[in-house]
Amino acid sequence: MELRGSVDKKILFEKKLEKLQNKLLQMGGLVQEAIAKAVQSLKEQDTSLAAEVVREDDLIDRLELEIEEGCLALIATQQPMAKDLRKVATLFKMIVDLERMADYATDIARIVCRIGQEPLIKPLMDIPRMAEITQRMVKEALDAYIRENVELAMKMVQEDDGVDKLHKQVFRELLTIMMENPRTITQATHLLFVSRYLERIADHATNIGEEVLFLVTGEKKALNK
Amino acid sequence: MELRGSVDKKILFEKKLEKLQNKLLQMGGLVQEAIAKAVQSLKEQDTSLAAEVVREDDLIDRLELEIEEGCLALIATQQPMAKDLRKVATLFKMIVDLERMADYATDIARIVCRIGQEPLIKPLMDIPRMAEITQRMVKEALDAYIRENVELAMKMVQEDDGVDKLHKQVFRELLTIMMENPRTITQATHLLFVSRYLERIADHATNIGEEVLFLVTGEKKALNK
Repeated sequence: MELRGSVDKKILFEKKLEKLQNKLLQMGGLVQEAIAKAVQSLKEQDTSLAAEVVREDDLIDRLELEIEEGCLALIATQQPMAKDLRKVATLFKMIVDLERMADYATDIARIVCRIGQEPLIKPLMDIPRMAEITQRMVKEALDAYIRENVELAMKMVQEDDGVDKLHKQVFRELLTIMMENPRTITQATHLLFVSRYLERIADHATNIGEEVLFLVTGEKKALNK
Repeated sequence: MELRGSVDKKILFEKKLEKLQNKLLQMGGLVQEAIAKAVQSLKEQDTSLAAEVVREDDLIDRLELEIEEGCLALIATQQPMAKDLRKVATLFKMIVDLERMADYATDIARIVCRIGQEPLIKPLMDIPRMAEITQRMVKEALDAYIRENVELAMKMVQEDDGVDKLHKQVFRELLTIMMENPRTITQATHLLFVSRYLERIADHATNIGEEVLFLVTGEKKALNK
């Protein structure tokens, strides 16, 4: 009977964890969307789309709160041990990263509102590319967690390197533009921050990769250093 | 006997929590020090002090890991409920904020190394003031948690506003300097980021304030919006 009880308990835990993981995927989807929309709104100078990103951040915050509460309830009622506890703790940490990513997307959207209809000082090439990579990283980081896939978690390193390189390129290019034409400085500075925020989003995805590695292998390793 | 057992359990929990809280205060002290040293190294263009900040970040990361492990062990072995569980969960979240603050201090130190001995384009006034406020915020945020003090947690709002105002001032001033003299652009951009990082550190302290409010009142409120 005791064994039966512990099997039931395990099944109940798995079921509740699955529910939380579904919410996590939902949150991840919203974060990807926020990044995509923020950079699209920048490219098309669509301030109403940017305002939408800012508004929808509340949804992501609410979802974070729900998942957090769910994690605590799961720990309190099921009292998982060892690996199971780590799985919940990792989820708990991941949503902090996801929420920060959404904040950066919101920061980008706010910059779009500030630039407004003022013509862009350069055609955007690298920034949309950075946005694409970071969106993919969000998806892969969550997949790595759900499937406990070390390979996928390790992939974050290369992708993060790619984003870093693009960021440095954007940085240099914008500095050159500013020096050639000081009237571009205000907008160039805004674009510098956009690039920096995307680079930070990639860092957060890399953090998730590290968490997953720790969950699966028990080794704490800094992937982005 | 059962009552006695639960009293013993509570005492053991309190004892283990206190140990973790001491580590938290230690971590907070190191973060305050990192902020102070980073900005001092900027002011005095002391790249060896900056390098020290970068090196000591590992210590903070290790401490974060220790506290994290301690929180999980405490949850697993003591299985705290309700408020006690929330107290541990809040600690768990706070160290993420602290670690991010230390990362920003490290980012500042890296910028100091990049600027090197090149003369500063302006005497630094507001940036050291921002650093002072953020250091105080770190201390107060941790005190608010330990003492579950709502008033202290709420104080984060005004202090965060103060830092935001200083950041905007620095931003405007640096833009003006850049426009007047494009040769200052590279360094001005670096200083812009320093200011932005300090502003972010204040945001993280405000996050901790929010967490403490939630712990004490059960209400989730965004303090910095």
